Amino acid sequence: MNVGTIHGVGLGPGDPDLMSLRAHRLLTGARHIAYFRKAGRTGQARAIIDGLVHPDAIEFAMEYPVTTEIPVTDPRYNEILSRFYAECAAHLRALATRGEDVIVLSEGDPFFYGSFMHLYTRLKDDVPVQVVPAITGMSAAWTATGSPVTWGDDVLTVLMGTLSAADLTDRMKTTDALVVMKIGRNIEKVRAALEASGKYEDAWLIEYASMPGQTVQRLSDAEGRVTPYFSIIVVHGQGRRP
Amino acid sequence: MNVGTIHGVGLGPGDPDLMSLRAHRLLTGARHIAYFRKAGRTGQARAIIDGLVHPDAIEFAMEYPVTTEIPVTDPRYNEILSRFYAECAAHLRALATRGEDVIVLSEGDPFFYGSFMHLYTRLKDDVPVQVVPAITGMSAAWTATGSPVTWGDDVLTVLMGTLSAADLTDRMKTTDALVVMKIGRNIEKVRAALEASGKYEDAWLIEYASMPGQTVQRLSDAEGRVTPYFSIIVVHGQGRRP
Ligand SMILES: C[S@@+](CC[C@H](N)C(=O)[O-])C[C@H]1O[C@@H](n2cnc3c(N)ncnc32)[C@H](O)[C@@H]1O
Ligand SMILES: C[S@@+](CC[C@H](N)C(=O)[O-])C[C@H]1O[C@@H](n2cnc3c(N)ncnc32)[C@H](O)[C@@H]1O
Repeated sequence: MNVGTIHGVGLGPGDPDLMSLRAHRLLTGARHIAYFRKAGRTGQARAIIDGLVHPDAIEFAMEYPVTTEIPVTDPRYNEILSRFYAECAAHLRALATRGEDVIVLSEGDPFFYGSFMHLYTRLKDDVPVQVVPAITGMSAAWTATGSPVTWGDDVLTVLMGTLSAADLTDRMKTTDALVVMKIGRNIEKVRAALEASGKYEDAWLIEYASMPGQTVQRLSDAEGRVTPYFSIIVVHGQGRRP
Repeated sequence: MNVGTIHGVGLGPGDPDLMSLRAHRLLTGARHIAYFRKAGRTGQARAIIDGLVHPDAIEFAMEYPVTTEIPVTDPRYNEILSRFYAECAAHLRALATRGEDVIVLSEGDPFFYGSFMHLYTRLKDDVPVQVVPAITGMSAAWTATGSPVTWGDDVLTVLMGTLSAADLTDRMKTTDALVVMKIGRNIEKVRAALEASGKYEDAWLIEYASMPGQTVQRLSDAEGRVTPYFSIIVVHGQGRRP
């Protein structure tokens, strides 16, 4: 019997029209589809492909065991997540070994801060795994601002809102163009770091880039707002432009 | 008469299968297609869509007036390029004003170090301009290495090989994950900066990511090689991974 392939398929930033031809073809033909989600939620990746999935496709929803209950610094956090990824990988490995191809959905690009990476490292030496790159959330975000993000030899820095205030500030100070992701409850820390680095007035907040409910506004116009999970901050570079 | 729309369409990294559904639809339906190229060459963007273009489509090849003859630092360089972009923009503006929609091709993502940006700034206040984001060359490059580029709260820095040796070294030292683009004749400077920052042994060189002739190798295995225009260097982040 032939062994199946696990396809880590990037869906892009949210708008199904921004999916690649390859992702679309793999998805509409898939017999097995797996995706991460928070317990009790649809999951963003699954939502993106609504209506595209074959009616006979078998779905495997991988529900995160922890989200906010245990602090990231608690060693149990890593243990629980690690066991969860191992269990998901075991299920997918078994499907592939039985000869089934499986599509694992990924928001944005799978290899760019994606959860799929945790399955990938656990599977790649055992069964065939193929990865389909995709448009990142940040590409949709800067496109939504209506201004190019980098010019000439601008330096672009991508920061996670989970970094320390000092790290954020130092790195913001020295870059030309800036993207901040994973903002959520870190928003006030990120805001303070932008102020300390002199970039606050030039920062744009994009919520739900390319998704229903997309918003684009200056961060300074969103004071006190709670930002959703799908939020990105962009500061545009100002490099050489003939 | 209605005014037409200029569409700045990102084609992705090279493989036509990685084009978005929207880009594909716009392209196959286009009556007017414009793209940059070096004099006498097909142009990479045009090559990507070979076979997709409608036989009756009218093509507008925008041929760069300067490439290597005049140093970038010479003020004439900027003047000549600026005049060139203004002329191209005038032609596109005239088409849109006559009611024609025009597709302007862009390699990778248009707003990420793309030439289309120079037309965009000259057109956006006069005629409707729509931008379609796309998979970047760097996404295809890190996907080709078979290892995720960023984990946890890794910092990603994107550098152009055109920066000074000192700038390159300083920024390489302090980042977790790294992408270097526009390498070309800057390869020895980039190599030296990677060595000075202790990242040389971890650097991967990807040529023609997702294109025919794609190569992936450790940069240290490519000593003395001349790298083509479509080359990217990637150093993977090593952040937290449960
Ligand atoms: C775990 S990372 C996944 C990144 C994804 N793999 C990508 O390529 O964009 C999740 C973060 O991505 C950002 N993000 C991804 N897509 C987004 C979108 N469409 N709009 C706003 N933010 C987005 C948010 O900052 C979110 O916290
Ligand atoms: C003017 S920039 C354009 C970047 C493009 N807009 C993008 O989103 O990737 C040109 C540089 O992009 C990089 N590049 C773009 N696509 C590539 C590919 N498929 N393979 C290797 N390098 C690529 C090379 O470093 C090249 O020098």
